[in-house]
Amino acid sequence: MIRIGILGYGNLGRGVECALQKSSDMNLVAVFTRRDPASLKLLTAGVPVVGIQNVLDWKDKIDVMILCGGSATDLPMQTPEFAKHFNVIDSFDTHAKIPSHFAAVDSAAKAGNKVAIISVGWDPGLFSLSRVYADSILPNGETYTFWGKGVSQGHSDAVRRIRGVKNAKQYTIPIESALEAVRSGKAPKLSTREKHLREVFVVLEAGANAAEVEREIKTMPNYFADYDTVVHFIDEDEFVKNHSGMAHGGFVIRSGKTGLQDEFSNVIEYSLKLDSNPAFTASVLVAYVRAAVKFEQASSFGCKTVLDVPPAYLSCKSDADLRKELL
Amino acid sequence: MIRIGILGYGNLGRGVECALQKSSDMNLVAVFTRRDPASLKLLTAGVPVVGIQNVLDWKDKIDVMILCGGSATDLPMQTPEFAKHFNVIDSFDTHAKIPSHFAAVDSAAKAGNKVAIISVGWDPGLFSLSRVYADSILPNGETYTFWGKGVSQGHSDAVRRIRGVKNAKQYTIPIESALEAVRSGKAPKLSTREKHLREVFVVLEAGANAAEVEREIKTMPNYFADYDTVVHFIDEDEFVKNHSGMAHGGFVIRSGKTGLQDEFSNVIEYSLKLDSNPAFTASVLVAYVRAAVKFEQASSFGCKTVLDVPPAYLSCKSDADLRKELL
Repeated sequence: MIRIGILGYGNLGRGVECALQKSSDMNLVAVFTRRDPASLKLLTAGVPVVGIQNVLDWKDKIDVMILCGGSATDLPMQTPEFAKHFNVIDSFDTHAKIPSHFAAVDSAAKAGNKVAIISVGWDPGLFSLSRVYADSILPNGETYTFWGKGVSQGHSDAVRRIRGVKNAKQYTIPIESALEAVRSGKAPKLSTREKHLREVFVVLEAGANAAEVEREIKTMPNYFADYDTVVHFIDEDEFVKNHSGMAHGGFVIRSGKTGLQDEFSNVIEYSLKLDSNPAFTASVLVAYVRAAVKFEQASSFGCKTVLDVPPAYLSCKSDADLRKELL
Repeated sequence: MIRIGILGYGNLGRGVECALQKSSDMNLVAVFTRRDPASLKLLTAGVPVVGIQNVLDWKDKIDVMILCGGSATDLPMQTPEFAKHFNVIDSFDTHAKIPSHFAAVDSAAKAGNKVAIISVGWDPGLFSLSRVYADSILPNGETYTFWGKGVSQGHSDAVRRIRGVKNAKQYTIPIESALEAVRSGKAPKLSTREKHLREVFVVLEAGANAAEVEREIKTMPNYFADYDTVVHFIDEDEFVKNHSGMAHGGFVIRSGKTGLQDEFSNVIEYSLKLDSNPAFTASVLVAYVRAAVKFEQASSFGCKTVLDVPPAYLSCKSDADLRKELL
């Protein structure tokens, strides 16, 4: 049994806890938190909650630590720090900062003879895999990534910061006609506006000016100005009833040509439809635990990403069984 | 530049030759054949065609040999034989015989300190990857593989063996309502008949009995009896005009549950739409050449499958560039 620690007990940490219950080869050993341990109520009976200051006492009791903090401030500090002492998995998802995060984690993990797998999830993660496979196999082509329909936390936050907004949720929606054009193999040039639509549900503060809020949303640079945005004003009840979910998903599509004169079209499409973004991301993190253990057994220390992991490393089946049953 | 040899110059060998022209890091060095070398006319100028009996003269001039023979009789003999002397890639696709093929190739390649990657293509191949990733990430779920719309060579051959049939082509067609049921996350139990339809286009010999041929097709055990089959009789002109293509494709879909009470549905879908089956399969073979070279550089000899290959090994980009651009 692989002994697992969870650091951070928000939506993702709870998702990992649930995913571990589906994994017959892993055991949750402890949950670590910066909060008062007594304030956490776990879903799993009998698992201790430990203050983060005592984490080094658990060095020999945990095979892999799953880091469930956020990419903005938690992981850039935590992953290099913990990779000195534990094999770790994180879901660092700030694409532009992956090279520097990788470098920091790699030197920490190598110093400690540990394995770290970073940026695990679905984008970065499974979508990255799809991009690399498709790009390598069809060098003469174009790759498109579409996100949604799903909630963008960053865009929802941006709307909530507008004066007069009490609550808000923003959905990113891929535009069906763009998807169809890409799937047809035409390799269209698509502007930002042509790929995704933004839909916002807003609960206003009493007395707020709806027209002014709508104008502020639609003209917000970076977040909305380059998109067509639909704004709906709803009341708190409807907000809670219909907009509390965390569904997400998306598409990676590559179209490319083969044949001597590029006479053959090919379309490779990978898609996800997820009722709960954090629960699914957690399931990906848990599968990569097995890879961390296999790298450690091979004394292959340092930082890795999903691009470095042989697919067989994710499975609890033996290589021979995989060849027989799934190849 | 990676120096490539091709063994076997049918549809797949020609597809590899075309794919190499899109790969800036590889050079086609020679094509090997059992036929009279003078009888082969390559698409690429200046590349020698060599009789297979002289292949060992090329041992130090070729980095990876791509074996383009058939799975029925060629590859079971050729891959173990060639893996003693060359790094090899094959597209062995008889699923049931993969374990014994693997064992034979593995001991040959290890004896020669060579790398062999077998069963490369899209099924087995890219579809196998999708099955293993999805199975590992959503342990609580069901995986479905659909093929088509595309030509089944085996079924076309079976129809051509019926008395009175001059020519025939069989298309395997996934049934749209089954695809939709799977995508909905309902995890339906589907019989063979409910997953795929078979459509056959037949050119009759003069004087043949159409009704009798149709009855023989539809009741043929293993090939057609378990399916709904539609038979069309057409003339030779229409056959040549409309049924000479080699398009194929298919879908791997896994639906699975996450959450403490399995309250969240998730659907992972991977699909291919290919104008030419052999041209695409060839492109996959060529991408795995880079993996063979990287395994050799790491002195990791023996037989591998796509499940053993880190995705980054397929790319001509550096690991750092992949992390920056595609992760």
